[in-house]
Amino acid sequence: MSGWVAVAGLGPGADELVTPEVMQALAEATDLIGYFPYVARVADRPGLVRHGSDNRVELERAAHALELAAAGKQVVVASSGDPGVFAMASALFEALEAGPAEWRLLDIRILPGITAMLAAAARAGSPLGHDFCAINLSDNLKPWALIERRLRLAAQADFAMAFYNPRSKARPEGFARALDILRQECGPDRLILFARAVSTPEEELRVVRLGDAGAEMADMRTMVILGSSHSRLIERPGSPILYTPRWTE
Amino acid sequence: MSGWVAVAGLGPGADELVTPEVMQALAEATDLIGYFPYVARVADRPGLVRHGSDNRVELERAAHALELAAAGKQVVVASSGDPGVFAMASALFEALEAGPAEWRLLDIRILPGITAMLAAAARAGSPLGHDFCAINLSDNLKPWALIERRLRLAAQADFAMAFYNPRSKARPEGFARALDILRQECGPDRLILFARAVSTPEEELRVVRLGDAGAEMADMRTMVILGSSHSRLIERPGSPILYTPRWTE
Repeated sequence: MSGWVAVAGLGPGADELVTPEVMQALAEATDLIGYFPYVARVADRPGLVRHGSDNRVELERAAHALELAAAGKQVVVASSGDPGVFAMASALFEALEAGPAEWRLLDIRILPGITAMLAAAARAGSPLGHDFCAINLSDNLKPWALIERRLRLAAQADFAMAFYNPRSKARPEGFARALDILRQECGPDRLILFARAVSTPEEELRVVRLGDAGAEMADMRTMVILGSSHSRLIERPGSPILYTPRWTE
Repeated sequence: MSGWVAVAGLGPGADELVTPEVMQALAEATDLIGYFPYVARVADRPGLVRHGSDNRVELERAAHALELAAAGKQVVVASSGDPGVFAMASALFEALEAGPAEWRLLDIRILPGITAMLAAAARAGSPLGHDFCAINLSDNLKPWALIERRLRLAAQADFAMAFYNPRSKARPEGFARALDILRQECGPDRLILFARAVSTPEEELRVVRLGDAGAEMADMRTMVILGSSHSRLIERPGSPILYTPRWTE
């Protein structure tokens, strides 16, 4: 059996942020699977069958990839950012664990990529330069009470915090509630970054104080990073630099 | 003034995990600065001046890079992994903030890379597929009490945890204390990954239960990832898969 599955991280958007390892897997694939906009990021070529699918069908997509590989295909599952961070890798393993035993014999590789928080942090400066956490603010797959608990504990730990999926049309109110909780825990002066569509032509960065932050500053393409109590702004001509020093007192 | 500084993430070790953006900056640089082993990872070429330096001189190295750029040089500061995660980006901004005002006019870019936790997670499966935190276990720049507090709060938040710099010759006892705290908070059955020298010929992965984990399982080249209470093992021929599902009950 020559089939394999590679779950590949395409990074945040720019081609220059895609690793050679991922490019190689894409060059060898017979089948490309993924959410429509991610599949659309890969150039077409003869011999590559494209299977775009809708959002929120991660498990079906994962099972489809494993079925194709079991049938001898070389399958790339395209993921935005890094596949292991709020993306397709865990969905693939959920499908694997629930599926037929022979799937466990397949050659499965996860190919890392530049996840959104690293790209956003790099464009703004270095807000994740000290201890930090990453929280998915979507409550599709976990209760809101758990999100709230994690926000409070992370604030008490004085982590910088990277927020994925801050806001969607289906959940317009969640992010506003998250900002309220963070203001209670961290106060109005804490720095917060809104980084939209990083590394694409639509890129837009904005750093404000938590007291001035509003839920409308984020959409589905926005990565939000809250600084720790030590995060600082360096003012300069043009955009300021947001960074978190390596030390604490 | 044509000088610039790019703090570039070389990824965990393999060339195929270095982004084209970083390769381009290395091709354009006049000067390469960094910790000796990272500078050694970049191929020599005519016209590139190499400035290797010792460990623990991050601020001096950063100031050197800024001085060279102010003098018109094109400077790459080589960082392992991602420069914004426990690496050179924050040191550069510390030096920038403390330095002469004209440095703030310099063209400074942070070029993201595949940080160790993403590479290690990808090789093991998908242990960071749900909310997680990243903690530097070195107490060079922060008090041990803060590390302990963060470990306990992160356990209470049920984050998966990625540990950078778990163990060094200078601090042999810190990691053993960290494991004790984690056993108290998470119990002996929690899964823990030791991933050494990922993506290099010396790569070695080991997944054990916290009750069986020992400090000697890590050295300076080891990335340690503790699962959340939901992390699971998929047994199969060869090495098992460690992953954290996207859902919680």
